[in-house]
Amino acid sequence: MVTISDQKLILAQRIGAFRDLLREKELDGYFLTDLPNLYYFSGFWNEGYFSLIGLRDSWLFLPSLLYNHARVTTFGFNCLKGKVFPNVKKIIKRHKVEKIGFDPASVQYDLGLELKNLGFVPVPGLVARLRSIKDPLEIDLMRKANHLAVLGLEYLEKRFKPGISERSLSADLNRFYHKYGHGIAFSLIIAAGPNSSFPHHITSDYKLKKGDPITCDVGALWQGYRSDLTRTFPLGKMAPSFWRVFNIVSKAQKDAVERLKPGVLAASVDQVARKVIKKAGFGKAFVHNTGHGVGIDIHEYPRLGPGSKDVLKAGMVVTVEPGIYLPGRFGVRIEDTFLITPTGYEVLTK
Amino acid sequence: MVTISDQKLILAQRIGAFRDLLREKELDGYFLTDLPNLYYFSGFWNEGYFSLIGLRDSWLFLPSLLYNHARVTTFGFNCLKGKVFPNVKKIIKRHKVEKIGFDPASVQYDLGLELKNLGFVPVPGLVARLRSIKDPLEIDLMRKANHLAVLGLEYLEKRFKPGISERSLSADLNRFYHKYGHGIAFSLIIAAGPNSSFPHHITSDYKLKKGDPITCDVGALWQGYRSDLTRTFPLGKMAPSFWRVFNIVSKAQKDAVERLKPGVLAASVDQVARKVIKKAGFGKAFVHNTGHGVGIDIHEYPRLGPGSKDVLKAGMVVTVEPGIYLPGRFGVRIEDTFLITPTGYEVLTK
Repeated sequence: MVTISDQKLILAQRIGAFRDLLREKELDGYFLTDLPNLYYFSGFWNEGYFSLIGLRDSWLFLPSLLYNHARVTTFGFNCLKGKVFPNVKKIIKRHKVEKIGFDPASVQYDLGLELKNLGFVPVPGLVARLRSIKDPLEIDLMRKANHLAVLGLEYLEKRFKPGISERSLSADLNRFYHKYGHGIAFSLIIAAGPNSSFPHHITSDYKLKKGDPITCDVGALWQGYRSDLTRTFPLGKMAPSFWRVFNIVSKAQKDAVERLKPGVLAASVDQVARKVIKKAGFGKAFVHNTGHGVGIDIHEYPRLGPGSKDVLKAGMVVTVEPGIYLPGRFGVRIEDTFLITPTGYEVLTK
Repeated sequence: MVTISDQKLILAQRIGAFRDLLREKELDGYFLTDLPNLYYFSGFWNEGYFSLIGLRDSWLFLPSLLYNHARVTTFGFNCLKGKVFPNVKKIIKRHKVEKIGFDPASVQYDLGLELKNLGFVPVPGLVARLRSIKDPLEIDLMRKANHLAVLGLEYLEKRFKPGISERSLSADLNRFYHKYGHGIAFSLIIAAGPNSSFPHHITSDYKLKKGDPITCDVGALWQGYRSDLTRTFPLGKMAPSFWRVFNIVSKAQKDAVERLKPGVLAASVDQVARKVIKKAGFGKAFVHNTGHGVGIDIHEYPRLGPGSKDVLKAGMVVTVEPGIYLPGRFGVRIEDTFLITPTGYEVLTK
């Protein structure tokens, strides 16, 4: 249980750790442009504002629409309304914030050009790497978000029956995550029968039939944090080809998960899963990465895929989700979310 | 009722109209980077792909994850998988597509730099302006999406009672829009009591009390198109101050709506609403634009706000949504969505 004063402390600690990073990079400040990064430091979730984090002071630049809302729900920031860039220029001048960084991967091209014109420097990945190591508050929230994902899927599983539509199932689960949590982590995927062969199927009016696989890729939102969980369920008696594929994916996941611990190359976790699937003759049917970091965003640093240079560290939260997709026939994906612990991992989707 | 073959025809017409625009701007092609623009031409809704529309041929650049899905559900495009830029370079060479535009407002800074390095030219607003004039299929979908928004709110209104939480109401309405439509248009806003003083309140566990205003800013998704509707409802007997504010906002909306017709400056619609509210002494409490275009995106061209240079045209779909927000006390917003017709407007939120 985290109280409001703990939360204040933790947000202050995040800004403190970020300022250390800024000093290391010889920056006087960093300009934040995208909501997940902004939320990480401010705790304020609303589109359309910016922030400058200096070595001593920090500012939020808000449209009138959000000004009062931010002023009463954030702390530790100077809240300013009105035109953003004149305000930024004044602060730079008055507070001698000279070398300011920004993230080239989370700003629009035309806004990025304006920042360059102001003399700001693109410094990629700074917040992403900080965010990849979850602090105690985040671990608490990720445990809750993932536990809720599991409860939702247990609730949904009881509703599977021939004749019910993907849409109807999705509607019920959307209600569940909004009622018992704070919403959904992403557009829920319910893909039954041949639709399961599309990894990112869009929910349709397809009605479940006996013998259908049902892939459910779901996640709940809990106080700004997202969970991620996939199961492919059988509906009644399945063809042997389904169980053959299912067992391969299941083994791929199991073997990959065994690799999870600090110091391990993210690419090697992918390699293990890919090897199992390739050996079984389905290499070309595994059409995505094995996993990804997750937190405020559903896809975060690190990437558990071929060619990734990322390294697992204690405090990271990652998915492991191999899949096999046979176009026009069916697909199977099994995904869980894990906290990397000092010695290995903890399953969060439980 | 639009059949699949109509849809093929309409998508082909959109690409035809866009090619006319490209020729006008002396471009040989346009590189699409963001999902709403991509969806407008391809009908394929899935994050993570790109498109090049040339004067004769068009291409989709897909990750393996989406390749089969796009190949069987799109038409008129050459579907390519593998690394995007090597593929793009080959096409440029082989098909003599020389001068290629891209939208600087809908691409990330680092990707935009890559496009610039390839010799692509930033040409802003090209697709946005095309998308602002809805074609017959889009008008049909916008009517359905908005009608569904209304039905949802009628359903929700019956559930208002002291003791029920914002979250519970939001959960039920989320289910409604996912079951009878194709999802929600944006994170639904249910803001009761003092929370209604935050225009973009985040749904909370606040429980309704007698005398509370309840602002519901809601919208459904229908086949990729979004609706937008806001009502502030009274719960039981309200203080006279509520009705005073309510009537001012209501008059501001009514007067502004009367301005809607082709040829009118979008800023003048805002001016009319703002004048009513200012005259009543609440000028500083109206903290946002009067309205915006809506379609595939919830906020589109044009902008009905101060200083906007946009002009209303037949076929545009816009919101009119004045509001008054009294910090710590309460707020009122009234929003409907309108199709601009040759002679005036049609209310879509009915």
